[in-house]
Amino acid sequence: MLHGHQTWLFNNQPTIVATAVVGGPFEALGPLADDFDLLHGDLWLEQDSFEKAQKKLLEDACAKAIQKGGLQKQDVQFFLAGDLLNQIISSSFAARTLATPFLGLYGACSSSMESLSLAALIVNSRAANYVLCGTVSHNGAVEKQFRYPTEYGSQKPPTAQWTVTAAGVALLAAEGEGPKVTSATIGKIVDMGITDPYNMGGAMAPAAVDTITAHFRDLDIDPREYDLIVTGDLGRVGYEIAADLFKKHNLDIPAEIFKDCGMMIYGPDQQAEVLSGGSGCGCSAAVTYGHLLNRMKKGELRKILVVATGALLSPLSYQQKESIPCIAHAVSIESSQ
Amino acid sequence: MLHGHQTWLFNNQPTIVATAVVGGPFEALGPLADDFDLLHGDLWLEQDSFEKAQKKLLEDACAKAIQKGGLQKQDVQFFLAGDLLNQIISSSFAARTLATPFLGLYGACSSSMESLSLAALIVNSRAANYVLCGTVSHNGAVEKQFRYPTEYGSQKPPTAQWTVTAAGVALLAAEGEGPKVTSATIGKIVDMGITDPYNMGGAMAPAAVDTITAHFRDLDIDPREYDLIVTGDLGRVGYEIAADLFKKHNLDIPAEIFKDCGMMIYGPDQQAEVLSGGSGCGCSAAVTYGHLLNRMKKGELRKILVVATGALLSPLSYQQKESIPCIAHAVSIESSQ
Repeated sequence: MLHGHQTWLFNNQPTIVATAVVGGPFEALGPLADDFDLLHGDLWLEQDSFEKAQKKLLEDACAKAIQKGGLQKQDVQFFLAGDLLNQIISSSFAARTLATPFLGLYGACSSSMESLSLAALIVNSRAANYVLCGTVSHNGAVEKQFRYPTEYGSQKPPTAQWTVTAAGVALLAAEGEGPKVTSATIGKIVDMGITDPYNMGGAMAPAAVDTITAHFRDLDIDPREYDLIVTGDLGRVGYEIAADLFKKHNLDIPAEIFKDCGMMIYGPDQQAEVLSGGSGCGCSAAVTYGHLLNRMKKGELRKILVVATGALLSPLSYQQKESIPCIAHAVSIESSQ
Repeated sequence: MLHGHQTWLFNNQPTIVATAVVGGPFEALGPLADDFDLLHGDLWLEQDSFEKAQKKLLEDACAKAIQKGGLQKQDVQFFLAGDLLNQIISSSFAARTLATPFLGLYGACSSSMESLSLAALIVNSRAANYVLCGTVSHNGAVEKQFRYPTEYGSQKPPTAQWTVTAAGVALLAAEGEGPKVTSATIGKIVDMGITDPYNMGGAMAPAAVDTITAHFRDLDIDPREYDLIVTGDLGRVGYEIAADLFKKHNLDIPAEIFKDCGMMIYGPDQQAEVLSGGSGCGCSAAVTYGHLLNRMKKGELRKILVVATGALLSPLSYQQKESIPCIAHAVSIESSQ
């Protein structure tokens, strides 16, 4: 199953038989609104804290994915999830609601593809027939956790990103109809010494490039084999740095196939607020499991590489003047049509 | 590979070819001191914060395990780790030092067996030849994170546990000499409504019993097949509750084979300080990878079941009056002699 140094090839065709994507009111105004299964009009989701609202997003997405897959929750054998709150509390509470054997993960925004990589490994190894995996982020809960409560209205530099309010969940199965997860490249920590939590795109870009380089080296294939190579979430600032690094490393990835989830989820009229772009581990999960898989279904995309990037800082490590360790995990998904 | 509802059987004999256990000054006074590879005489480990000391514990244990395994760090293909600090920052920094593809996990104190379960799955599936997995906790860093800085000298109730300062790491390989990881039972969240973070043993005991029950149901074997069934870490209070629950559920586990890592790591003269017992995800890792595997090597134990328990609360979920979701993962280890 291991190919090269750090890539898993899934020969038993783990299949994404259903996905579900749930978002908030600001995402409802974006260009991908039609790709959400459910959009909440209220950022509080009728809960009495943003943290509980984050949990509800993930619970809603899990319930919807299970329903779309034609299953009952007791049919799901394992649940793999992560989020950005301390002690990934939203994931644990959603796992309590599901009552499914649970593996909690933390890779910041890379958790979306970390969970898909491990879920695919489990299904590919026949260690389960049905595995649910997903991630969630909530603007109010996450901004408070990592920076300042949004109510403070703190001004941010143009390199800052906007935490997406969304959950994205995939139901993987050993058999069935749907796109196949064909490989996963697990990333190393890359830390270029950046200490500014308002420039996470810049910090994460080298990690994305490291994993993408490893993916093509391990599999010995050309980037043009993919219809789309999509990072999540570098934003505009990180995207430009990654594009420059590709050139520097002689990795020929045409601009038309290199995109970023954080630049796709919001429209030009939202840019004054989102600055460099969207972020949060709900962003890449929502864009992938909603928009990108819908485009696959329509036949517009045949084979994609999703590269979820994570900035593994904590507020405390930042206060202790540590630089930001970054990571990226890449997963290839192919249409079965 | 899946057996029953939630148990993986590892038929390809993933092997623990080396382990390393590093502890602090208080652990050096305990009855298991001789089972540590390295004991630091200073709680700060010559670092300028407890958080950096926690990172150093894990780094030391990783370096030692790799050395004992006769490898170089570039031979290790994947590193799976978790800790109790927000954003598992010690694990991420240790992964940066190792420069190995990294999968971050969070399951509170259950992270020790969560990481061993997934590492064994990866090796068993031939998705790697060498995987390093481990966990760490540090009394000063973790008490501050979850309760109060130890310097406050807050009084604690007798149900409270003492966070162990230790890291435990295992090097798994597809081939080689050493005990085999033969199965893993992945736990569900069990939440009995306990909200007191000073009674985590009481909160976690039902989760331990749920996973142990599932293990014997899934594999259809008798508890007496094991020389030792060891929880980590219920402490004295949780241990008594678990023993009562076994009786209630008609699970016949003799007291002489049921032990708890949190009750083993400190001696009677330390009890005034540790109260109900040790805890922290370094505790079960250190006791298992040090003391228990040493007893296996001596031929005193042939087959053990390690059941690591996690209280998945966060300080914020506690303040929001949420109860404590708990989980336990069980891994069986068999001597190859």
